[in-house]
Amino acid sequence: MTFSFELLAQDGGARAGIIHTPHGDIPTPVFAPVGTAATVKAVLPRDLREMGASLVLSNTYHLYLRPGDDLVREIGGLHRFMAWDRPILTDSGGFQVFSLAQINKIDDDGVTFRSHIDGSKHRLTPEKSMQIQQNLGADIIMAFDQCPPPTDRSIVERAVARTSAWAARCRAAHPDDTTQALFGIQQGGIFEDLRAQSSAFLADLDFPGYAVGGLAVGETKPQMYATLDYATPLLPAHKPRYLMGVGAPDDLAEAVLRGIDMFDCVLPTRIARHGTVFTHDGTTNIRNAEHARVETPIDVTCSCYCCQNFSRAYLRHLVKAGELLAHTLLSLHNIRFLIRHMEAMRSAIFEGSLRQYTEAFLRRYLASA
Amino acid sequence: MTFSFELLAQDGGARAGIIHTPHGDIPTPVFAPVGTAATVKAVLPRDLREMGASLVLSNTYHLYLRPGDDLVREIGGLHRFMAWDRPILTDSGGFQVFSLAQINKIDDDGVTFRSHIDGSKHRLTPEKSMQIQQNLGADIIMAFDQCPPPTDRSIVERAVARTSAWAARCRAAHPDDTTQALFGIQQGGIFEDLRAQSSAFLADLDFPGYAVGGLAVGETKPQMYATLDYATPLLPAHKPRYLMGVGAPDDLAEAVLRGIDMFDCVLPTRIARHGTVFTHDGTTNIRNAEHARVETPIDVTCSCYCCQNFSRAYLRHLVKAGELLAHTLLSLHNIRFLIRHMEAMRSAIFEGSLRQYTEAFLRRYLASA
Repeated sequence: MTFSFELLAQDGGARAGIIHTPHGDIPTPVFAPVGTAATVKAVLPRDLREMGASLVLSNTYHLYLRPGDDLVREIGGLHRFMAWDRPILTDSGGFQVFSLAQINKIDDDGVTFRSHIDGSKHRLTPEKSMQIQQNLGADIIMAFDQCPPPTDRSIVERAVARTSAWAARCRAAHPDDTTQALFGIQQGGIFEDLRAQSSAFLADLDFPGYAVGGLAVGETKPQMYATLDYATPLLPAHKPRYLMGVGAPDDLAEAVLRGIDMFDCVLPTRIARHGTVFTHDGTTNIRNAEHARVETPIDVTCSCYCCQNFSRAYLRHLVKAGELLAHTLLSLHNIRFLIRHMEAMRSAIFEGSLRQYTEAFLRRYLASA
Repeated sequence: MTFSFELLAQDGGARAGIIHTPHGDIPTPVFAPVGTAATVKAVLPRDLREMGASLVLSNTYHLYLRPGDDLVREIGGLHRFMAWDRPILTDSGGFQVFSLAQINKIDDDGVTFRSHIDGSKHRLTPEKSMQIQQNLGADIIMAFDQCPPPTDRSIVERAVARTSAWAARCRAAHPDDTTQALFGIQQGGIFEDLRAQSSAFLADLDFPGYAVGGLAVGETKPQMYATLDYATPLLPAHKPRYLMGVGAPDDLAEAVLRGIDMFDCVLPTRIARHGTVFTHDGTTNIRNAEHARVETPIDVTCSCYCCQNFSRAYLRHLVKAGELLAHTLLSLHNIRFLIRHMEAMRSAIFEGSLRQYTEAFLRRYLASA
């Protein structure tokens, strides 16, 4: 099966569909857990599958530096390397270079930087990003872009121009979407005309999918939602739309309402490692004394392995004792919570009841905030 | 089902049998992974079950201090608390008090100590150990003993006398083996007459099982094997015999040959967290450069989830990247390796070929040492 997108239902601006990929189908809207270094931290692939994960994101920057994309290719590609036979998406490496590495030089050709691991010097260009992602072998790969702080117009303008030029070079370096579908990334910060300019340029390159880039990088939630209001409809309606790096349950709800189909975020696994879990009444830290003698699970209605087997009292004990199993169990629950949220939104879209679901979800989830 | 032991086959001094417990059967000889704080570190109960684990050990000292045996009892007992529905064994707490805590006072009544966690002051006596273990609710519980350095005769003599007196008090405090079977612990260091004296005293108390205590605490391997040569046959033949704290593959083989039925050890999970794995050719550290580009698993003949799914190259990558999944995957393999070793010895005992199996195993396993 090569890459394609079927739009199955709409409810207001929201959409439900299926992304077909060489490694299987992705029902949308979808949340992708993040496996930065070819592992969703502390979670076995089998358990990811059981949680209903249909897509995992891995980071090009990290895998390029360690163990190296050549090694991953030699071992049979990322799917085989990490034993995940469902769809994978890799990012371009750009965002991590700008946020993690020490930048030596940015020019129109690319970025020279030093590794955050060992200080070694490297250069990433649109062509190099394509080559690395081809070696990794993910089903969906991303164009190399420059993600600016979203509110400074002159900086955003330059980033849009550079992102457009780089997108064209990525398209040239990866002209065929048969085995790996290359997505373009819209930039433009909080400026509608720049988003429009970016989208128009990308649409001409005819990517099989598009991301709304440059959000969730420091702007307020109202700014993000307001930007999505106009930025999302600027993207081609018959292609999947991806909001990168977003995973808070309320943000997922607001973005699905506005027509986003795909998400990824480290949030569920990162907060799990600090003892924080999602519940329908908001987040709670399982380390809190209130959970010490609670026989019931995090969520009595949750089907995850953690909630099916363990009390809050046990989980608190694991966290307090510094036990590794706490990371695994809380990560499983948080991933399942987000995937279940996506499943519920998808069903609601088919039923035409997304706004009611979202209002009820947000009323309860945000009540304690 | 209450507690009982069936001896099914013998091969020289070695034995194969079944221990029946309220939570199911334990085929012997058996190796029990250690779940110190009510969790086998980094391993889900589901995976322990899949590895073929039929018995898990938890530590009374740790659970008494955190989260507290009263809390475990309140949540429904240790089986429910840690979601392990197969047999559990708890130790007496004595060994950990002597090795981990700051001892304030040892007298004939018991031990006063300070917690290694928060410095709080506690007292453990034979009666208190029974009460804690009754609250935890394991299928097999251990008498409170004093484990001396094995080679100083005068110290060992005093420890044997105290262990005998404490065993009698444990038996009095736990007279009924219906739901929890109380095992006695033989002491005597490397002195045959003291081992005999200890065994005779314990046999009169008619425990449903017996441990050879005070080994694997600093003596050499030849000393341990030589002690087992006479210490094991001193224990009643129709009761299970348990060698505490032993888990090296060669030690397991030597001890099974000498008539031991049960083992526990942190070794497989502890070395896994440092990157070391068992193979039939000895141990290897997966961090070593030799594994960097190896496509094959740790052991191509192993049925564990790790070997069925992951290359050495991937595992090395996880270890080098400090990924939590490394602990899980290497622990799974090491546990499965020991359990498979026990399964092979059990089969060989039924076939009368244990000596051949053991010689072949040791020749290969120790060749690289």
